[in-house]
Amino acid sequence: MHTEVTRTRPAPARREGVTDDNWQEDPYNRWGFRHVREFTRTARISRGQGAVRQLPERHTDLSDFLTVVGDEAFTLWEALEAAYVDAFVVVNGGAIVHEWYAEGMDPHGTHLLMSVSKSLTSTLVGVLVGEGLVDPAEQAVTYVPALKGTAWDGATVQHLLDMSAAVMFNEEDYDDPESDGCLIEFASGYRLGQRDDVPGDTVSWVVSLDPQGEHGDRFQYRSIITDVLGMVIESVTGQRFTDVFSDRIWSRIGAEHDADIIVDPKGFPTVEGGICTTARDLARFGLLHLERGAVGGAQVVPAEWTDRILCADPALIARYAASSSGDPTTPQAYYHDCWWVWDAAKGRYAGHGINGQMVLVDRSTNTVIAMMSTWPHRMDPHLSDFGSRVAAELLDHLSR
Amino acid sequence: MHTEVTRTRPAPARREGVTDDNWQEDPYNRWGFRHVREFTRTARISRGQGAVRQLPERHTDLSDFLTVVGDEAFTLWEALEAAYVDAFVVVNGGAIVHEWYAEGMDPHGTHLLMSVSKSLTSTLVGVLVGEGLVDPAEQAVTYVPALKGTAWDGATVQHLLDMSAAVMFNEEDYDDPESDGCLIEFASGYRLGQRDDVPGDTVSWVVSLDPQGEHGDRFQYRSIITDVLGMVIESVTGQRFTDVFSDRIWSRIGAEHDADIIVDPKGFPTVEGGICTTARDLARFGLLHLERGAVGGAQVVPAEWTDRILCADPALIARYAASSSGDPTTPQAYYHDCWWVWDAAKGRYAGHGINGQMVLVDRSTNTVIAMMSTWPHRMDPHLSDFGSRVAAELLDHLSR
Repeated sequence: MHTEVTRTRPAPARREGVTDDNWQEDPYNRWGFRHVREFTRTARISRGQGAVRQLPERHTDLSDFLTVVGDEAFTLWEALEAAYVDAFVVVNGGAIVHEWYAEGMDPHGTHLLMSVSKSLTSTLVGVLVGEGLVDPAEQAVTYVPALKGTAWDGATVQHLLDMSAAVMFNEEDYDDPESDGCLIEFASGYRLGQRDDVPGDTVSWVVSLDPQGEHGDRFQYRSIITDVLGMVIESVTGQRFTDVFSDRIWSRIGAEHDADIIVDPKGFPTVEGGICTTARDLARFGLLHLERGAVGGAQVVPAEWTDRILCADPALIARYAASSSGDPTTPQAYYHDCWWVWDAAKGRYAGHGINGQMVLVDRSTNTVIAMMSTWPHRMDPHLSDFGSRVAAELLDHLSR
Repeated sequence: MHTEVTRTRPAPARREGVTDDNWQEDPYNRWGFRHVREFTRTARISRGQGAVRQLPERHTDLSDFLTVVGDEAFTLWEALEAAYVDAFVVVNGGAIVHEWYAEGMDPHGTHLLMSVSKSLTSTLVGVLVGEGLVDPAEQAVTYVPALKGTAWDGATVQHLLDMSAAVMFNEEDYDDPESDGCLIEFASGYRLGQRDDVPGDTVSWVVSLDPQGEHGDRFQYRSIITDVLGMVIESVTGQRFTDVFSDRIWSRIGAEHDADIIVDPKGFPTVEGGICTTARDLARFGLLHLERGAVGGAQVVPAEWTDRILCADPALIARYAASSSGDPTTPQAYYHDCWWVWDAAKGRYAGHGINGQMVLVDRSTNTVIAMMSTWPHRMDPHLSDFGSRVAAELLDHLSR
């Protein structure tokens, strides 16, 4: 499904009528994504007790910024509304140059990140790699014995990070409510209700998957693969993901607020898509990457881990081009370590999530863009292209 | 049911085996009460952006404190374990003189307050009375038209505050899982599952109640009455309880952490028992009362509102003595404005919640005690008496 890009203003967020069952659907998602914890189980990711990283503001006149779609020109503000954006923070040269919130959203409210969560999760894996607890070349089953004898046998941590593990999971069509990509919402906690034909929790689904092909052969986006990274993280640390993520990352980037994460009925964290943060804290996470893993002089993530995202490995590029995500207009794009690399030469990569979530890191312009949205549909090519184009044009604008 | 007071150490809190269905039951409540949001829908009560009220510590030797039960003497530490306490904070003369946490609990984790929530809710009513938005003598139906033509017709806000509204609701026996006091857990969000024979949300239950007697005639503890205060608060402010409570109280007492509150399937807040705070923040709330509604020179709650709790109205005392809560050994006790007044002459009153929650305010010794526990049973006369006795003896000890 798709939504025409027009100046039509999205419906405002309202609580009335939003239920456990519809909070992800239009127009209820407008309230739902900002109040996920009111519709399902969540755990807290503590910001710890440290100081907040202050983000200075630098006044920047963006009134002459225009994006053209067909024969319509959109100012930045019009574009954000047309793209169903709820929150938008641009940090350039270390300062906030633009910050915008839809009605009812503010700098202190969390918003669901959807699959941008994957980029947060993989960054934690990077920390554990730096600590020597995880080797990307090692098989996942080495760390998670429960995977032995399943379709995951032989899959390395790197296969998980690159979405190339060979398991059967259909996430190609979010418009099909019976596809795995939608049904997993019942297992992983997005939906409280259970279905007899869907495993009752994430790990049960993980271990029940059928194999498909050879590990490493192809890139195919399947969220459940990232959940296995969550299992690895919990297994090698002997702690819950929430505690490890708080300890290693969230308490070290100067986050202003605790984050939320959806948990399944057994308490397993939905690391592939269930994290909720404020827009500013998402921008702070982006800055962690932009600054090659360091925050205020302290190395939080190994610099090599952020650099390797930009490896531009021809094999990754070829795999990506051959996948359903491949796009001839961006022949150098690829997916690596749970990031979508737009342009490795520019140092431009992003985490993306359905319904219009994004954190964009761009070394070439020294910029991070955090964008949170509630598109009417989970996946929407028109709005996706539009949002990415607005972001790219804004980077060009800022570099002038 | 009751639990013998012995030096037996409670089982430690563990995540494994705790489910949506058993998190309130022994021994699962030990983890459950510290992680309520992982088992049901919750909303956030923001602490706002203000400074944390620092609580200085004053070293106080309590090694000679002993409580005797039968022929056993308990040190304070032994007593806290015997009483299934999870967190214990004593503030005397403005400084923390004792702070203790069970294994796995810390100053930054929230814990379910159960009915201590009622005392927080009524304090917010006090603020709204001060603002002229609520008159305790006015009928609830004046503020909440949906109550018109129901058993609540004729009940004043004061009747709600004093648990003397005349509605039929059986909360006398928590050991009976079919009693209203247990079944309401299905409506108000403690339990995610629904039952066909229980209203699906709190307000539906409120408006469906049958009348019983005359408003104001008797004191009978029925949690659902406090929920109507929540309806009044939302109605007169036109805002959600979470926002009003944050704005008027939680952001003004120097709370260190956001609080959580259980919400029902329609988002109605469980103001009668669903609030979760840290132990220190509960102590800060107690200090708000101890200091007659002021925090750092700013009047947050009218002083008259805190003073009137200690009115020692003979009618309240008589009503209380005649109720099932009456106790000949404390003939001057009463329930007023959602507080249990232990001794008005001493300025000693408390909020109590099942499974051993308490905030005790004592003007005579300038002390607040915050206690969070997970008794094996919701109500337990042995542990209740023991916990209250330890607190009272500690006040005596501190006044020496």
